[in-house]
Amino acid sequence: MGPNENLLDVLLELQALDRVPRMGFLLRGVSDPESIAEHSWHVLFLVWVLAPRIPEVDASRTVEIAIVHDLAELRTGDLPRPAGRYFPEGAKDTAERKAADEILAPLPEKARELYAEYQTGETPEARLVKACDKLQLMLKVSVYEGWGAGALAKFWRNPDNFNDGGFEVVRELFEELESRRGRDLPG
Amino acid sequence: MGPNENLLDVLLELQALDRVPRMGFLLRGVSDPESIAEHSWHVLFLVWVLAPRIPEVDASRTVEIAIVHDLAELRTGDLPRPAGRYFPEGAKDTAERKAADEILAPLPEKARELYAEYQTGETPEARLVKACDKLQLMLKVSVYEGWGAGALAKFWRNPDNFNDGGFEVVRELFEELESRRGRDLPG
Amino acid sequence: MGPNENLLDVLLELQALDRVPRMGFLLRGVSDPESIAEHSWHVLFLVWVLAPRIPEVDASRTVEIAIVHDLAELRTGDLPRPAGRYFPEGAKDTAERKAADEILAPLPEKARELYAEYQTGETPEARLVKACDKLQLMLKVSVYEGWGAGALAKFWRNPDNFNDGGFEVVRELFEELESRRGRDLPG
Amino acid sequence: MGPNENLLDVLLELQALDRVPRMGFLLRGVSDPESIAEHSWHVLFLVWVLAPRIPEVDASRTVEIAIVHDLAELRTGDLPRPAGRYFPEGAKDTAERKAADEILAPLPEKARELYAEYQTGETPEARLVKACDKLQLMLKVSVYEGWGAGALAKFWRNPDNFNDGGFEVVRELFEELESRRGRDLPG
Amino acid sequence: MGPNENLLDVLLELQALDRVPRMGFLLRGVSDPESIAEHSWHVLFLVWVLAPRIPEVDASRTVEIAIVHDLAELRTGDLPRPAGRYFPEGAKDTAERKAADEILAPLPEKARELYAEYQTGETPEARLVKACDKLQLMLKVSVYEGWGAGALAKFWRNPDNFNDGGFEVVRELFEELESRRGRDLPG
Amino acid sequence: MGPNENLLDVLLELQALDRVPRMGFLLRGVSDPESIAEHSWHVLFLVWVLAPRIPEVDASRTVEIAIVHDLAELRTGDLPRPAGRYFPEGAKDTAERKAADEILAPLPEKARELYAEYQTGETPEARLVKACDKLQLMLKVSVYEGWGAGALAKFWRNPDNFNDGGFEVVRELFEELESRRGRDLPG
Repeated sequence: MGPNENLLDVLLELQALDRVPRMGFLLRGVSDPESIAEHSWHVLFLVWVLAPRIPEVDASRTVEIAIVHDLAELRTGDLPRPAGRYFPEGAKDTAERKAADEILAPLPEKARELYAEYQTGETPEARLVKACDKLQLMLKVSVYEGWGAGALAKFWRNPDNFNDGGFEVVRELFEELESRRGRDLPG
Repeated sequence: MGPNENLLDVLLELQALDRVPRMGFLLRGVSDPESIAEHSWHVLFLVWVLAPRIPEVDASRTVEIAIVHDLAELRTGDLPRPAGRYFPEGAKDTAERKAADEILAPLPEKARELYAEYQTGETPEARLVKACDKLQLMLKVSVYEGWGAGALAKFWRNPDNFNDGGFEVVRELFEELESRRGRDLPG
Repeated sequence: MGPNENLLDVLLELQALDRVPRMGFLLRGVSDPESIAEHSWHVLFLVWVLAPRIPEVDASRTVEIAIVHDLAELRTGDLPRPAGRYFPEGAKDTAERKAADEILAPLPEKARELYAEYQTGETPEARLVKACDKLQLMLKVSVYEGWGAGALAKFWRNPDNFNDGGFEVVRELFEELESRRGRDLPG
Repeated sequence: MGPNENLLDVLLELQALDRVPRMGFLLRGVSDPESIAEHSWHVLFLVWVLAPRIPEVDASRTVEIAIVHDLAELRTGDLPRPAGRYFPEGAKDTAERKAADEILAPLPEKARELYAEYQTGETPEARLVKACDKLQLMLKVSVYEGWGAGALAKFWRNPDNFNDGGFEVVRELFEELESRRGRDLPG
Repeated sequence: MGPNENLLDVLLELQALDRVPRMGFLLRGVSDPESIAEHSWHVLFLVWVLAPRIPEVDASRTVEIAIVHDLAELRTGDLPRPAGRYFPEGAKDTAERKAADEILAPLPEKARELYAEYQTGETPEARLVKACDKLQLMLKVSVYEGWGAGALAKFWRNPDNFNDGGFEVVRELFEELESRRGRDLPG
Repeated sequence: MGPNENLLDVLLELQALDRVPRMGFLLRGVSDPESIAEHSWHVLFLVWVLAPRIPEVDASRTVEIAIVHDLAELRTGDLPRPAGRYFPEGAKDTAERKAADEILAPLPEKARELYAEYQTGETPEARLVKACDKLQLMLKVSVYEGWGAGALAKFWRNPDNFNDGGFEVVRELFEELESRRGRDLPG
């Protein structure tokens, strides 16, 4: 057994993250919705663009939190939002934390700390990733609506989807996005 | 509001069961895996064929249990099997029961009782549906392997997938299925 | 050769029912339309919900008719509706009957009788399955329209799609469905 | 109504030929099989390449026959091969002829004559298109097998799939194709 | 090595043309867009219908130009339109010409001449294929819009998409197509 | 026009990166291949895992280079590898550089510098991203082969696909990956 056996196992398993669909979109009729891997990339890109504009966050650490933030779904799938209320308080978070810890086991301790930090959501870095997780959701909703895909009006009515984490730049982007609703997509 | 308003809500929501993929297949590379609706239909057909061959089961009731057995996944998605061990003992069952109860709310009490009976798994009828749930899994695995789709060898090595519920006819079908492995599909 | 050889052949072949698309949707641009297996499951669920509300039908028998009603399409495919008028009077029915008889050959005689009963469409049970076949069509049309998928206006204009079989509860559901057209989907 | 109203109707309807899957591949597990439009293009290309090598055929007319040869399936779908034996002798041909005649109605008489010539299959031109229809089938089977897609062994065992129409160049290509079976695809 | 070895290599490689998507549609959210093979078939059909109505074109030669006109994309993919402006003047044409020449190498010289004639676009035959290439684009845009698929408004605003090659019958079809925009699809 | 108008345009356009398929996989028969967004995420994850193990690279900068490394393909598509040789020397790089510069225009200068650094490929950070770009390719090839998807043997024979950038840890991973070829996937 080579020295990187466990790491290689994880790297191979992670390729299947392309096949885990974002259930909220699937259940509302988007026929080829983004995968967790695609969602993760877009959140990462957002974080990388916005973090340097916010003095109080450590941009590099924010990017790292974004890298790990959805890894658990490789093992748990993407639980549709209504599923949350059927589980005991906190059970979903605990399950995802355990899954993430197992996936990240071949990596240094720091990887698991970043995941824990994301879940707790208290540091500015974690709050920014959480805000970008929602901003990406609404960017994708805008694009799918422009494409005529899915019944997504509901997403615009849920205030949770507009969590800006207290960051002005995120709030501005949410506002501009809403003001564009129904207009043609750029490009 | 019409008298069937709530029933109609459920009937419409249920159409989305076509879009909930069986996660075990998806994560192992089957590119267009069966949906929960498809799986449910095949389990139902199996139950309908096999129940009359088993004197101790009430065929009609078994069919009804099969109709409701996977409804919860409309709200919870199809949790990949490894996900089970990350949740507290029983949490997955409780969540699915709550989801099924909500979905079945516009129907008579009996519908929710059938679901509970399935979960408890003690009556011969419930045991037969559970056995057919696994038999259908291995039928589909056989077909996907014949089609060259996915990395499914692992399914054959898991004894849980060969739960025959103590019914001889199911055990025989499992045995014949195993003996065919690697042979061309019929037809 | 095992005693269940022929039965197993059929059970394996039936898995492919997931891959037979409903042609009417495909030809009108729904990009991932329901399969015959999915359609069959939804019709079955409808029948199971509605039959107990109708005193003159035998609920259990109606469910069984629904189980077999579309099996022939495993061998004939789903003929698009316009195809019907190109074949000699009755040729499509005869072909489907022959196909169903072959598929159901390893099962007891009763299975083929249920199929024949469906085709003839004279018993209240057969009429209810036929009515639910159309009700499910219009439920799916409603959902696809809500999702922005396909050019389906035409389905609403065809009176054949609103065949209620003379059952009041089906007629009511058709009416409520029509009155909702254009409104947001529930959920 | 413009002078090209009927022609435009047909040109628009024909775009849906991209969505009619080749059922034989679909039912044997190829997950994204060629459409009738794709099949037609490949047959056309073959005919265009091979006809000039065969002195007794009129290349230009052969190409025209290939253009119309599968048009009927826009209205009838692609009947799976087993379906043929469930219909009365000749019913499938008659149905396809009627469908093709309707589709080609806005075109000059010659278009319908080409279709009739194909069905009758007696002229060298029609025989070459029929042979290329099979040669393309086996080319696609070879490619899908190289890709690991579907359970297609059966196609190699059916002599109907090697109908060379009496043309030596087609026979040679079938032979070379068979001799390559199991080897890596080119490129 | 058989005498048709190189030809067979090309015939097999060409089957993959079914998997090259039209990028303009893909990037604007059409979830299962036409392939190059499908596009090619439709252009061919258009050319075959329209050429006989135009006295100055040789119909048979026009069909042959249509057969080869998009072959290069098997090797280069379908470059999205904006990509053109990032390459040096003429680089895309040169690349496609080289690719087509290689693909067509096992065929007689005439095949490569037809491709060159298409690219140069000066003969009436080449101009008609180019006009039909655009007419097919707008036919497909009309169909996709009718199906609710993609954000395609932009295509109607680009005058390049209405290049009629100076042929009146093409101009008329463009006009009728525009006048139908927003109306239900036929059929 | 809001202050973030141009940034928002780019963020929306980038969502379409989910729809740009990796052409090498598509052309070799993988039926639902990874998108550029998915590929980018996996390269990023690899870089994030491996950079801290290599003293001479700045991990944070390497991650940033990985974020931008494939952005150009949003405008140029993913040119299949053979396409490269049809363009003039350097034309593909120049085109991608121009495309990336336009996409990154609303971001600070540094973003475009990172892209240029990647293309030049001289710094250790750029070399590591390039090596991980290949390592991810072979990880995905391993997974697709395990899944029975596509004709990918050719990838193992191309030494370019094993470019380790001179980093020992990458070389080791390539070696372990090769030694596992043909074994079951983990998990």
